[in-house]
Amino acid sequence: MATTAKQAKTEEKNGAENADEQADKEQQEAIEQIDEVQNEIDRLNEQASEEILKVEQKYNKLRQPFFQKRSDLIAKIPNFWVTAFVNHPQVSALLNEEDEEALQFLTKVEVQEFEDIKSGYKINFYFDQNQYFSNDVISKEFHLNDTGEPSSKSTPINWLDGKDLTKKANSPAKGGRKRSPEEQESFFCWFSDHGDAGADELGEVIKDDIWPNPLQYYLASEIDEEGGVGPGG
Amino acid sequence: MATTAKQAKTEEKNGAENADEQADKEQQEAIEQIDEVQNEIDRLNEQASEEILKVEQKYNKLRQPFFQKRSDLIAKIPNFWVTAFVNHPQVSALLNEEDEEALQFLTKVEVQEFEDIKSGYKINFYFDQNQYFSNDVISKEFHLNDTGEPSSKSTPINWLDGKDLTKKANSPAKGGRKRSPEEQESFFCWFSDHGDAGADELGEVIKDDIWPNPLQYYLASEIDEEGGVGPGG
Ligand SMILES: [Ca+2]
Ligand SMILES: [Ca+2]
Ligand SMILES: [Mg+2]
Ligand SMILES: [Mg+2]
Repeated sequence: MATTAKQAKTEEKNGAENADEQADKEQQEAIEQIDEVQNEIDRLNEQASEEILKVEQKYNKLRQPFFQKRSDLIAKIPNFWVTAFVNHPQVSALLNEEDEEALQFLTKVEVQEFEDIKSGYKINFYFDQNQYFSNDVISKEFHLNDTGEPSSKSTPINWLDGKDLTKKANSPAKGGRKRSPEEQESFFCWFSDHGDAGADELGEVIKDDIWPNPLQYYLASEIDEEGGVGPGG
Repeated sequence: MATTAKQAKTEEKNGAENADEQADKEQQEAIEQIDEVQNEIDRLNEQASEEILKVEQKYNKLRQPFFQKRSDLIAKIPNFWVTAFVNHPQVSALLNEEDEEALQFLTKVEVQEFEDIKSGYKINFYFDQNQYFSNDVISKEFHLNDTGEPSSKSTPINWLDGKDLTKKANSPAKGGRKRSPEEQESFFCWFSDHGDAGADELGEVIKDDIWPNPLQYYLASEIDEEGGVGPGG
């Protein structure tokens, strides 16, 4: 139908039109070919992602027995985790005095990356029996929800009577006096804070910085305080 | 020598000392064992990184012929790159009117990731002969310098007489009048800006967002303006 309409035009005009049309057609073809090439590139990108995921999964499995062995050894050292946390500049800033007392009962930390890795991770905190809460394990989990949005959830903490550290810290200071540093928000508030699941700062510090090598943080103060490494001395 | 000193103490004291010492010794041993386990974990991490790097290198090679073919096709489409840049919200914000004119001579963009990938990348901009500068290619390169710090360098632009877009835009507006939007800093200032080599925003947008699929940006305005994809119409 375009051809029929064009045929009614003058020859001169036809010449220009045809050149234009020819250029347009060639460009359209080039775009279609770019699109095909792009599909090939996309396919290679997907294959690369899958291969990389497989490598990560393989090494996650290979690391497991070492993480297990490390946890067993860490359990032999009293206050290992609270010491590592106190020695970590970012985590330390989140701990008030009572947090540090409660975290003396933290015997094991465990970071689990989900099988497809990108979809999230879970951190398990194992506690000895203590005067603050009745949980043996408190977990916080980061995952993508049904709509692909980052989301988090955590174990409700069963605080013992009058021991809820998140309420103490959150209650406004009496008589309008200034809050002392010890009255800062509790570390334990983090468990019920689901406001920034896509980039949870503490979660990522534990997963990416502490978990890969907690010993360096446990030993950090030893170096400072004693000029050497290791307990005793 | 510690043992000799301890022997002088009372038996009672000795009992407590010995228990303390025994605990200290066990902890010290646990720490040494954790350190050994950690070395194994570190070794696995290095192996994982090496395997992932090999996968990335393999796919970088596999993608090359498709990138080459894509460049050849893109060369058939006048104003492909300037259109893609104008349609990209972040890049568009960096272009003044004269930049857009100069970028009409941009015939090819090329992103090269260095063999070891983590160490950097280079973006080459190929230009047809034009009234602004005499360069055929202008490149900006991001790499780690000798001390491991991110650093960048770029091709000096040989501006033709009175055509230096970076000087025009930078000169203060005359007579104290307010700068019009067209007088914003030139896109070409980016080449000599080495202030944020570790996280160069435009460099990363081109490498990670445009280069993987420039066609989507070239076509973006077509969709908006014509309710369909492709040239002509
Ligand atoms: Ca010590
Ligand atoms: Ca069109
Ligand atoms: Mg552990
Ligand atoms: Mg190209």
